[in-house]
Amino acid sequence: MADQGLNFDNPLFKQFAFYSGVVIVKTMSMSVLTALNRIGKSVYANPEDCAIGKAMDRNCKPTLTDPTVERIRRCHLNDLENVIPFFLIGLLYVSSGPNPATALMYFRIFTGCRLLHTVAYLCKVPQPSRALLFGGGLVVSLCMAFDVIRKAC
Amino acid sequence: MADQGLNFDNPLFKQFAFYSGVVIVKTMSMSVLTALNRIGKSVYANPEDCAIGKAMDRNCKPTLTDPTVERIRRCHLNDLENVIPFFLIGLLYVSSGPNPATALMYFRIFTGCRLLHTVAYLCKVPQPSRALLFGGGLVVSLCMAFDVIRKAC
Amino acid sequence: MADQGLNFDNPLFKQFAFYSGVVIVKTMSMSVLTALNRIGKSVYANPEDCAIGKAMDRNCKPTLTDPTVERIRRCHLNDLENVIPFFLIGLLYVSSGPNPATALMYFRIFTGCRLLHTVAYLCKVPQPSRALLFGGGLVVSLCMAFDVIRKAC
Repeated sequence: MADQGLNFDNPLFKQFAFYSGVVIVKTMSMSVLTALNRIGKSVYANPEDCAIGKAMDRNCKPTLTDPTVERIRRCHLNDLENVIPFFLIGLLYVSSGPNPATALMYFRIFTGCRLLHTVAYLCKVPQPSRALLFGGGLVVSLCMAFDVIRKAC
Repeated sequence: MADQGLNFDNPLFKQFAFYSGVVIVKTMSMSVLTALNRIGKSVYANPEDCAIGKAMDRNCKPTLTDPTVERIRRCHLNDLENVIPFFLIGLLYVSSGPNPATALMYFRIFTGCRLLHTVAYLCKVPQPSRALLFGGGLVVSLCMAFDVIRKAC
Repeated sequence: MADQGLNFDNPLFKQFAFYSGVVIVKTMSMSVLTALNRIGKSVYANPEDCAIGKAMDRNCKPTLTDPTVERIRRCHLNDLENVIPFFLIGLLYVSSGPNPATALMYFRIFTGCRLLHTVAYLCKVPQPSRALLFGGGLVVSLCMAFDVIRKAC
C-alpha cells in the first residue's frame, strides 16, 4: 500500500517527520547554545579556540568545568541518548503499520516531554520534574520498540 | 519491487527491524541502569538532583567520578558510537538490495557482539574479550558501509 | 512514484546513500583512531584494559586526561552531534520530494565541511577555520530540517 510507505503521501510518516523534525532541531540547537556560551564566557575545550571572539586575552586557557557549559552539554548528550533512539525506533514503528491514533499520541507525548525536559534541565526546575519528563519519553520509545520487536520476530 | 521496500512486507527489512530493535533497546537500557545506580548510590551530576530518593541527606553534592556510574556511561557512549552507525548504514544497506543471507549474517554477528560487549564491559571480563567484540561489531558496520558506498557511487 | 522511494532506483536516495555513507565511515574511523592512540600510548579508561598490547607494565593505570586521546574523542562526539542529525533529517528530506539539485548541493557542502572539520580539529588548524566548517554543516542540516517541518505541518 502506498500509504504505508516512508514518504509524504503517507499521513503517518508526515506526522512522524513533523514531530521528529522538531525534536532533532531542538537537539541541534544545543550545539548553538553551547557555542554561544563558550564564546560569551571564553570557556573553550581546545587551546586554539582562545583566538575566537573576545577571548584574545592572554589568560584564556582550556576549561572543561564551567557549570553552565557542562549543564548544556549534559542536556545535549541526554538528547542524543533519547531523541536518536526515538527516531530510529519510530521509523521502524511507522513501517510496521501501527494504529495511526496510537502512533500520533506517542509522537506528541515524546515531543512534549523532550521540549519540557530541556526547559527543566536548563532552568534547574526542582526534581522530580526532569526525571518524570525523561521517563515519559523513554517509556514511549520502549513501547514502540517492543511493538516493533513483537511484530518482527 | 515491493519486497525491497522499507516495510514489513520485505522479509529482510523485518529481520533488520528485529535485530536493530534489540540493540536499540539494549542501548536505551543503559539509561535506566545509570538512573538506578545514581539513585541507589546518591551519585548525581546536577545539584538539584539531590532531592531525588534517599538523597535527602544534606551531604549530597554533584559527583562526576563514581567508578560504577562512569563505567556504565562509557558503555552507553560506546553503544551510541556503534549501534547508531550500524542502524544508519544498515538501513542504507537493506535498501541497496543486498544478498539476504549475507545481510542476515551481518545483523546476527553485530547483535551478538554488542550484547556480549555489554556483558564484558559491565562484568569487567578480562581483555582482549571486549576489544574483540567491539572490533567484530565495527567490522560488520564497515563491511556494510563499503558495500553501500560501492553500489551508490 | 518509484523514483521518490527510499531505494537505490531513486537517484537522489542513491546520492544521499553515497554522501552519508562517507560521513558515517569517517565518524566510525574516529573509534579506530581512539583505539590506536590508546594502545600506542597506553592510555586506557578502564583498569582491565591495561592488559592490552605493550601496556603490560605495572605502572599502567586508567587515564582520562591524555590531550591527544581527549581531542580525538571531542572530535568524535562532535561528529555524533552533527553527522547523525544530518542523516536523520536528510532521510526525511529525501522522502519529502525536494529539488534534486538543491539536495545534492546540501549533501556535498555538508560532506565537504565535515571532512575538513576533522582535518582542522586533529591538525589544530588556527581558528576560526574549524568554527566556520562546523557552522557550514549545521546550517545545511537546519535548512533541510526547516524545509521538512514546513512541508510536514
